[in-house]
Amino acid sequence: MRSPIEEVVLEGIRPKKKDIDHITTVAERLVAAVDRSGIAEGMVVGSIARHTWLNGDRDLDIFMLFDPSLPREDLEDKGLSLARSIATEFGARYREKYAEHPYLNAQLEELDIDLVPCYRVPSAWEIQSAVDRTPFHTRYISERINPLIDDVLLFKQFAKAGGFYGSDQMTEGFAGYLCELLVYYYGGFIPLIRAASSWKKRTIIDIEGIGAKSFEDSLVVIDPVDPNRNVAASVSLTRKFEFVELARGYLSSPSAWFFTVIDEPPITQDELRLILTQRETALYGLFIRTPPFIPDIVVPQLRKSLGAIRGLLERHGFVVNRADCCMGDERCLMILELLVDRLPQVRRHIGPPLWTEENAGKFFSKERGAIFSGPYIEDGLYVVEIPRRYTDVASLLSSGEVLETGLGKHVKHSMREGWRVVRGADCWAEEFAPFLSRFLNRSSPLGRIRLREAQQNG
Amino acid sequence: MRSPIEEVVLEGIRPKKKDIDHITTVAERLVAAVDRSGIAEGMVVGSIARHTWLNGDRDLDIFMLFDPSLPREDLEDKGLSLARSIATEFGARYREKYAEHPYLNAQLEELDIDLVPCYRVPSAWEIQSAVDRTPFHTRYISERINPLIDDVLLFKQFAKAGGFYGSDQMTEGFAGYLCELLVYYYGGFIPLIRAASSWKKRTIIDIEGIGAKSFEDSLVVIDPVDPNRNVAASVSLTRKFEFVELARGYLSSPSAWFFTVIDEPPITQDELRLILTQRETALYGLFIRTPPFIPDIVVPQLRKSLGAIRGLLERHGFVVNRADCCMGDERCLMILELLVDRLPQVRRHIGPPLWTEENAGKFFSKERGAIFSGPYIEDGLYVVEIPRRYTDVASLLSSGEVLETGLGKHVKHSMREGWRVVRGADCWAEEFAPFLSRFLNRSSPLGRIRLREAQQNG
Repeated sequence: MRSPIEEVVLEGIRPKKKDIDHITTVAERLVAAVDRSGIAEGMVVGSIARHTWLNGDRDLDIFMLFDPSLPREDLEDKGLSLARSIATEFGARYREKYAEHPYLNAQLEELDIDLVPCYRVPSAWEIQSAVDRTPFHTRYISERINPLIDDVLLFKQFAKAGGFYGSDQMTEGFAGYLCELLVYYYGGFIPLIRAASSWKKRTIIDIEGIGAKSFEDSLVVIDPVDPNRNVAASVSLTRKFEFVELARGYLSSPSAWFFTVIDEPPITQDELRLILTQRETALYGLFIRTPPFIPDIVVPQLRKSLGAIRGLLERHGFVVNRADCCMGDERCLMILELLVDRLPQVRRHIGPPLWTEENAGKFFSKERGAIFSGPYIEDGLYVVEIPRRYTDVASLLSSGEVLETGLGKHVKHSMREGWRVVRGADCWAEEFAPFLSRFLNRSSPLGRIRLREAQQNG
Repeated sequence: MRSPIEEVVLEGIRPKKKDIDHITTVAERLVAAVDRSGIAEGMVVGSIARHTWLNGDRDLDIFMLFDPSLPREDLEDKGLSLARSIATEFGARYREKYAEHPYLNAQLEELDIDLVPCYRVPSAWEIQSAVDRTPFHTRYISERINPLIDDVLLFKQFAKAGGFYGSDQMTEGFAGYLCELLVYYYGGFIPLIRAASSWKKRTIIDIEGIGAKSFEDSLVVIDPVDPNRNVAASVSLTRKFEFVELARGYLSSPSAWFFTVIDEPPITQDELRLILTQRETALYGLFIRTPPFIPDIVVPQLRKSLGAIRGLLERHGFVVNRADCCMGDERCLMILELLVDRLPQVRRHIGPPLWTEENAGKFFSKERGAIFSGPYIEDGLYVVEIPRRYTDVASLLSSGEVLETGLGKHVKHSMREGWRVVRGADCWAEEFAPFLSRFLNRSSPLGRIRLREAQQNG
C-alpha cells in the first residue's frame, strides 16, 4: 500500500502519456537509423530504456554497438561519422563531446540526445571502455525492474530532493543505475528506506552473490554484471549518511517535502557581510580561471588544491574553520573560513633531538638573523623562537608558496597565470551566491526539511 | 693532566685550609655530643663527610643514628629532643623542619647545620625511611672517592654553573651523590664529560652490576647501595640534555664560563612591555597565594595546575605558545603566553557519527538556542556551529572552570580563596622579575655561555 503522500508525489513524477509516446517514437526512429547503417546496432539505454525516467527528464541515450574487432581509432572515426550523418538526417543541432572517448550530443524535438559509439562485447567482463558496460546495465535492469518502476521513480525523486542524486564529482551521490539496483535488491521504496535507516559505517550489498574483491568504500554495491566494480564507488561518506538521515526522518515523520527540490535562495552581498559580522570569522576567497576541462576532471582537482592550500595555512599556524570550492563556467572560487587571520611575530620552531649529536650540533650552530629566544631545550628537543614569515593570511595566500603546494595539475596551470585573493564580503559574486548560501547556512538535508515544515506550520 | 682552565677553576672552588679546619672541628664536636648522649651515634654525612664540598658551602649534615628497634614516634621525639639539647648546649639558633620526618636546622658559627635523626639499619635494603639510606651513601662514596675529589669538585661546579645541580623539584637536576657516582663510574671529570657527550635518549648505568628492576627514566643510575632505586630519578629529560649539550660544548671549545654561575639580570617592567610588543603575543598571569608547604610539595602541584589550565585553554581553542610557573614566598605566578587571546563567536561542535542511530537522533533533535549553522554531516559525523562560551582568554581564566580542572590539591585549596588574572606587562612583579627574564630570554645553558663569550670578545 502506497501512502497518500507517495501517491500524490507519483502523480507528479510519472512521465505523461504524451511525453512517453513522443520520446519512444524519437528513440525508435534513431535506433532504426543506426541499424540501417549496417555497420552498427542501435540501442536505447539509460532510464528511458528502463522506463524509470522522471517526468520532465529530456535525456535520451542512444548507443551504437560496433563489432569488438574494430580498432579503437576506427570506432571513434566511424562512430562519430555515423552519429553526424544521423543527426544531419534528422535535422538536429549537434556538437562533439568527450568522456572516455568521443560522442555526439544532439538537440532534437526538445530532447537532449547523446549518440555514443561502443563495442558490442559478449560479456561485461570483456569491456574495452566503461561505456561498453552500459548496455549490460540496461539489460540487467530492464529484465527485472518492471514491477518496481513506481518505487524507482519515488526513490529517484527522494534522492534528487535530498541532494544525493548523481554520481558526478560535485554531487558524490547515487547514480540512476545504483538507485535502480537498490530498489530492486530491497524490493521497493519503503523496504529500501527501512534498510538504509539502520545502515552502519560499512554497507556491503552483493545482489548476485558474485563479489570477491574487497572494496574500501563505505557503501559497496557489487555490479551484478561486473563483480570487480563497486557501483557505489562515487558515493561519499557524507552523502551516504545524508541519505540515511533522510530515511530515518521519512520513517518517523513523512511529508511531501522529502520529494520537493528546493534550491537555496542565493545570498546577497549585504547578507553575507552581516553573517560574517555575526560569526566574527575571517572569510578568504581565491578566484581562479576555470581550467578548460569537464567538471568531473576539474572538481576533484579543485578539492585537492583546496586541501593543499588549507594544509599550507595550517602549517603556518592558521586555524581553518571550514573550506569549500565551487566550479563556475568562467572562474572557480575556493573559500577558506579562518578563526583568526593574523598571528604574532613569534613562532616556535622545533629542531632535532639532542641525542642525534650531529644534527643537534648543526642546528645549534646555525647562523640565524633576529631571534626572539633560544635555541633552548624542551623534553630533549631543540626549540628556537624566530620571526614568523607570514603574519597575515592574505600575504600567505598571495605568495608563491601556494603554487608549491599539492595543487591539481590543471588548477596549477590555471593559477600560474595568477589568482585573486579577496576577503570578507568581497568573496561574493553573483554566480557563486547559491554556493555561498549553502556554505554559510550549511545544514543536513533533514535539517532543511524540518525547517521548512516548521516555517509552513507557522 | 688538568687543563690550565681547570687548574684555575680548582684554585677557586677547593675549600680553603682555614674553612676545612673550622668545619671539621665543629663537625667533630657535634658528633662527639651525639655520641655522649648514649642513645644515638653521631655521623657526619653529605659532601663535608666526603670532602667533596665546594669552597663557600656552609651546609653541614649531622646524622643521629638510633637503634632500629625504637618505634617511629619515639625516634621522632627522642631525635628532636636530643637535637634541641645539643643545639642549646652549643648556643645555636635553631628551628624544626620537616621532610619525610622532622629534623632540626641550626645556625652555628656561620654554618647551616641539619641535625637529622635516623635508624642505624644493617643494610640499605632494610631502611625504614629515605634518610636511613644516607649513611650508606656516605660510606660508599668515602671509601672510593679520595683519588677523584678534584674531579668531583670540577663536575659539581660545572653542574652548578650549568643550572643542573640539585635534585629538588624546581631544578629537576643532579644531586651531589649522583655527581659523585658519575665521576667515580667514569673515572674522572673529563671521562664523564666525554661519555655524556654521546649519551642517547636512554642511559643506564649500573656501577655494581646489581640492577634488576627496569626504570622508565631517561637517565638511570642504579644506587649501588639499593638496586631498587634510581639515583637519577629526579633528572628531567630537559636537564639531562642540557648537561649533554654543555659536555659537547666544553669538549669542542672549553672556557672558564662553563664553571661560572651567572644569574640572569632581572627584567624591568618596561623591558617586559617592549619584549611583548616585539613578540606580539598575549601574556597572561595568574597570581595565587603560596600554599603553606615546602617547595618540593608545592612546585610539582604548580606545574600540574599549570598543565591543567593550559589544557583548559586549548580545549577552548586558544593556542598556548609557552607556559611556566614560579613559587614565591608569599605568592606564586603561573604565566601563559598565547598567540591569540580572542576568538570568534562561531565554534564547531562535533557530534556523534550517524551510524550510532540513537545518539545521532538525540543530537539532531536537541533543543538549541541560537546556532550559526548545522547540524550538518561531515564524513559521517554530525557537526553544529554554535556560539563560543569564552571568546576571550581573560574571561575563561577568571571563570570557575579553572577550579574544575585538574589542579594540584594545595593549589586548588589556595585558589578557592581567589586568584588574580593579569595581562601583558601587568604580569611583572619585582620578586618574579628573574623568573620572567629566564622565561622571555629562554636559552639553553650552552647558548648563554656562547653569548657571553661573544660579548667578551667584543
